[in-house]
Amino acid sequence: MSQDHPASPRHLVSIDDVSIEEMHALFAHADRFAGNPRTFADTCPGFISASLFYEPSTRTRLSFESAMLRLGGGVLTAAEMTSSSVVKGESLADTIRVVGGGYADVIVLRHPSEGAARLASHFSPVPVINAGDGSLEHPTQTLCDLYNLHVERGRIEGLDVVLAGDLKYSRTVHSFAFALARFGANIVCVPQPGFELPEYVVKRLHEEFGVEPIRADARRLGNLASNSDAVYLTPQKPHQLSLFTDARGWEVQQVDAVYMTRPQTERHSSKEMSETQYLRLEKRAMAAESLRDAVVMHPLPRRDEISDEVDADPRSIYFKQAARGVPIRMAILSWLLGRIDLDVPLPKAAEPSLAVPSGPNPCPNPSCISRTETRHAGPRFHVISETPLRAACAYCTREISFGLVGCSSTGVYHAPGAAAVGQIHFHHLVLLEDEAAAVRLGFRPSAAPDPSARA
Amino acid sequence: MSQDHPASPRHLVSIDDVSIEEMHALFAHADRFAGNPRTFADTCPGFISASLFYEPSTRTRLSFESAMLRLGGGVLTAAEMTSSSVVKGESLADTIRVVGGGYADVIVLRHPSEGAARLASHFSPVPVINAGDGSLEHPTQTLCDLYNLHVERGRIEGLDVVLAGDLKYSRTVHSFAFALARFGANIVCVPQPGFELPEYVVKRLHEEFGVEPIRADARRLGNLASNSDAVYLTPQKPHQLSLFTDARGWEVQQVDAVYMTRPQTERHSSKEMSETQYLRLEKRAMAAESLRDAVVMHPLPRRDEISDEVDADPRSIYFKQAARGVPIRMAILSWLLGRIDLDVPLPKAAEPSLAVPSGPNPCPNPSCISRTETRHAGPRFHVISETPLRAACAYCTREISFGLVGCSSTGVYHAPGAAAVGQIHFHHLVLLEDEAAAVRLGFRPSAAPDPSARA
Amino acid sequence: MSQDHPASPRHLVSIDDVSIEEMHALFAHADRFAGNPRTFADTCPGFISASLFYEPSTRTRLSFESAMLRLGGGVLTAAEMTSSSVVKGESLADTIRVVGGGYADVIVLRHPSEGAARLASHFSPVPVINAGDGSLEHPTQTLCDLYNLHVERGRIEGLDVVLAGDLKYSRTVHSFAFALARFGANIVCVPQPGFELPEYVVKRLHEEFGVEPIRADARRLGNLASNSDAVYLTPQKPHQLSLFTDARGWEVQQVDAVYMTRPQTERHSSKEMSETQYLRLEKRAMAAESLRDAVVMHPLPRRDEISDEVDADPRSIYFKQAARGVPIRMAILSWLLGRIDLDVPLPKAAEPSLAVPSGPNPCPNPSCISRTETRHAGPRFHVISETPLRAACAYCTREISFGLVGCSSTGVYHAPGAAAVGQIHFHHLVLLEDEAAAVRLGFRPSAAPDPSARA
Repeated sequence: MSQDHPASPRHLVSIDDVSIEEMHALFAHADRFAGNPRTFADTCPGFISASLFYEPSTRTRLSFESAMLRLGGGVLTAAEMTSSSVVKGESLADTIRVVGGGYADVIVLRHPSEGAARLASHFSPVPVINAGDGSLEHPTQTLCDLYNLHVERGRIEGLDVVLAGDLKYSRTVHSFAFALARFGANIVCVPQPGFELPEYVVKRLHEEFGVEPIRADARRLGNLASNSDAVYLTPQKPHQLSLFTDARGWEVQQVDAVYMTRPQTERHSSKEMSETQYLRLEKRAMAAESLRDAVVMHPLPRRDEISDEVDADPRSIYFKQAARGVPIRMAILSWLLGRIDLDVPLPKAAEPSLAVPSGPNPCPNPSCISRTETRHAGPRFHVISETPLRAACAYCTREISFGLVGCSSTGVYHAPGAAAVGQIHFHHLVLLEDEAAAVRLGFRPSAAPDPSARA
Repeated sequence: MSQDHPASPRHLVSIDDVSIEEMHALFAHADRFAGNPRTFADTCPGFISASLFYEPSTRTRLSFESAMLRLGGGVLTAAEMTSSSVVKGESLADTIRVVGGGYADVIVLRHPSEGAARLASHFSPVPVINAGDGSLEHPTQTLCDLYNLHVERGRIEGLDVVLAGDLKYSRTVHSFAFALARFGANIVCVPQPGFELPEYVVKRLHEEFGVEPIRADARRLGNLASNSDAVYLTPQKPHQLSLFTDARGWEVQQVDAVYMTRPQTERHSSKEMSETQYLRLEKRAMAAESLRDAVVMHPLPRRDEISDEVDADPRSIYFKQAARGVPIRMAILSWLLGRIDLDVPLPKAAEPSLAVPSGPNPCPNPSCISRTETRHAGPRFHVISETPLRAACAYCTREISFGLVGCSSTGVYHAPGAAAVGQIHFHHLVLLEDEAAAVRLGFRPSAAPDPSARA
Repeated sequence: MSQDHPASPRHLVSIDDVSIEEMHALFAHADRFAGNPRTFADTCPGFISASLFYEPSTRTRLSFESAMLRLGGGVLTAAEMTSSSVVKGESLADTIRVVGGGYADVIVLRHPSEGAARLASHFSPVPVINAGDGSLEHPTQTLCDLYNLHVERGRIEGLDVVLAGDLKYSRTVHSFAFALARFGANIVCVPQPGFELPEYVVKRLHEEFGVEPIRADARRLGNLASNSDAVYLTPQKPHQLSLFTDARGWEVQQVDAVYMTRPQTERHSSKEMSETQYLRLEKRAMAAESLRDAVVMHPLPRRDEISDEVDADPRSIYFKQAARGVPIRMAILSWLLGRIDLDVPLPKAAEPSLAVPSGPNPCPNPSCISRTETRHAGPRFHVISETPLRAACAYCTREISFGLVGCSSTGVYHAPGAAAVGQIHFHHLVLLEDEAAAVRLGFRPSAAPDPSARA
């Protein structure tokens, strides 16, 4: 049964929104589309996609537009949104309502602010596909990467995948790591020294997927890891323990894929990279026995992190990888447009987010869409735990801790666990960082008398 | 019978070019297209539209391109013409002749200069659609607005439509007002104080459509008009006089539509708006009894002139209004491409304009296309009256008064009514502002002897 | 039999790559397409072209895109490549491999660097069409110009074609001149004084096509040549000698076409044009008896070099000429996509170029693509003669002379003809400008002892 569209369209904002079953079904359709891409023009005839790009990304845009054209659809292109209606002060919410209201049947959105696609999905009558929102998500890139493993290896579960290079700033790599863990693949981290996987990523891998990091013996990776401490991340399933050769750690055996990443220099502080030479995949690195059957992947564009000589190696699949972006996007578009049926159960819907009823925007992330899109959308959050009070921004997912809860009606603040909190009407609830913030906003402790009542 | 195309294509430059009968026929076709827009791909197969945008306007462009794709046609996009051939010094006339000569079957033109679309229509072998030329015309926006009234109210004649906000600088509002008057609708002006409908608009409403402005009692408009003096403009037809409750003016009864406009800040002088807060349509304003059945319209983009709360009100149709831009543009495109037939008589052709044979360009409008497009097109005008001698620029429609008429052959100038004027060959006719201008250009009075003859 | 595609696609990089037979076949197909361009939508259904424009050229882009749409294909547009992936440091080679690898079936490339299309063709799995690379080639413009002669005159061989204006800097005119010579047409040069055909063009015309320049008596050209010394360039075939009226030169008889060019002011030094007024084709120039049947052509855009009055002359075909760019590009696209068959023998393949094995890039042309595209492509050349050692850059075709040959293994340099040169392994070959360059790079003469061997 196809999506219940357009009454409540399905969006693709985060890779987390898509179930493993759905991904497998999408891969199967992509396989079909990849066969002879010019024979599917009857899949979406009369349908229109709109590319709304608030920052340029020609490769991503062309990949989507190629997919839509192959499906027989039409394409509207707004490659430079910033030079247009933004100048006239239109909110993203309004633009989405207009374009989704009658111009297009699906919106492909690229935006520099984190959470922009989530916000757009709240307002769009048609499916929104996130084509990259700041450094947060780029789910079709992740689906493309996973699809490549599926094609090259026939499966994803149990694969050993090396992630190499800048693992600190590349959020695409983080999304890919989470997805690999969900599929039950093992990750071998070979970071550029100083650019290891951030703690919060490792923590989430552990909490959500039971992944355990183990210091790995990377001698068999040879030259590739000569300059780096490898770490092995594996979902804790009994059958995989046999991979470990002894108690001191894990010895890398055969690797299935090496995923190279470019240095995200646009996010580096000026000095961070100056001393160290960035990792470069050379021909001799590929000679390591453990890489004998490994495919080399790269999300592209690359700069100097893969040597020219490696291009000719049959294990290098990065250009094929990019080409496969078209059939996987054909699958995604025809799925969200209700033109193919995945025949799998719908995943559990996420908890709806809560609006921040009053007070300042608690999200501390300066690139969050909630910071700039203030005209028709307000801050929203998901509660993660009640005591201590922790929440996540509903747009950019940044975690926020609150020390106190205020009531905008009484002007009083309380500890999150206090009985009085249960009495506060939702519209009067104010989440407060700490006492200083509470006082600055004019709140007083619950014990203190109400000065206005006294007067 | 379809348009006699391409020998003499029909263009859409000004809303004035379209008869009431044609508009009704276009609305009927738009109704049909709106039904299921994806089923009309056989309307314009193999046809191509070209979007030539000399200033960005993503919304308008996407609306046209969506319409063309829905009709099964192809789309050429030049969204940033200024960065292109203009740099190489090509005239608009030449660009139009090339694009219209073989690349496209219809040209959608957006240009910052007033009268640009009229000029383009003089050179184009295919229909030109004006998608906005400076602050002059945007006829498809006007048709979209009228179409919305037609859909929401079933008729336009006799409706009471409130125009609210900046009525001074919004030329879209002026076009809309003229069109409403032509249809026999009544206009209630609720301007931002200081931003009333300009005198020349009221004058034209009176002269062309017999519209009489009456100071209105706007108490029933409640909050909406609390800050503003309302004026009622009505075509003088006997049956409408009954609307007036007494001799002192008209009392607003039930309003059919409220048309909000944004402040055209880009055209305001720096101080004009600083003191006054711009009108904002709030929920409580919509509670007025007179607005009970009124739909709220806005050409979009909006900024803060409509409150968020109003979005959820079922009377708010501005997003529907934008969506209906697609079916009405499908009707316009298929009409001008000769693919549908309006089955109404052709309107009377406008008088051809006259070239300014010699001398300086008499049009005083600095944003008129005749000021910059000098290579392959010269100034042209329409004579409005002979004594006093008044003309209108054939491009930007600006009225020009002339005090004197010169003959470039004899070097003599005359009063417009003088018998000698009839003797001047058209190619020698020079229109002169006044005596000072005449002398500056080397003309002498008709009485004075010819110095060159004497020598 | 269609092209052997995509295993080894045929590209259109230079007009020299296309044989006369192929051009005639393309003209025949273009004639067919020109008949009713809207009836060929079944020619390339499901095929996609990608316009990759690294500098804006709206006219050229729209012409290609119109052709592709008329053929029923889809179009991907990247009109402003410079603002996109280039910023992320991606090489042209990688972009071409990605776009050609899966997004598009044919690439239309415009690039400011000379030789960019040649380089792209080395990496592309799909056909590359050169839509202008710097001032080097614009083969579809040349094919369009030739096609116009074919349509207007029914043949090209033996025609007398006037090339007028800036013949020095317009490389389009140079390409056109070479192509006319190949077809056996005669050229009458009427240059803007100071902007004559460069010596190397005349030399190549002589060496490759046996063309002889003869000072012409241009009195019959009247006003057109009043300010200019005309030169007649004719392929030396016996039957054409009869054209010459006497031994002193050739007298211009009936001209078949006048090809006007605009001043290439962007390539002029600041003073070059200041004194002289650029040639302007006026009505009275067209009154010359010799031009009675001449068509007037111009590649457009024009500025002031053709008077408005000439536009109305039925001999002025420049707008028709531009319009015919669509059917000829329909022929080119459907040919390279293997959808039509030219039924002529394949031309002889060009000699493969040689990589510069080591040492500095010998190409002295600062706008050559080999200067900037250094990541995945190295300098390459074609040897023209061995003694003296002359080569041509494989990208920009610039000729290079070498005084010496070095061996990077022994560190010794030799004269090009020396016996020792034959012993140097290709990978050690270094081409050296002269002794100073050799010494600067650490080479020593063949006689001198090896200092490192001594140590």
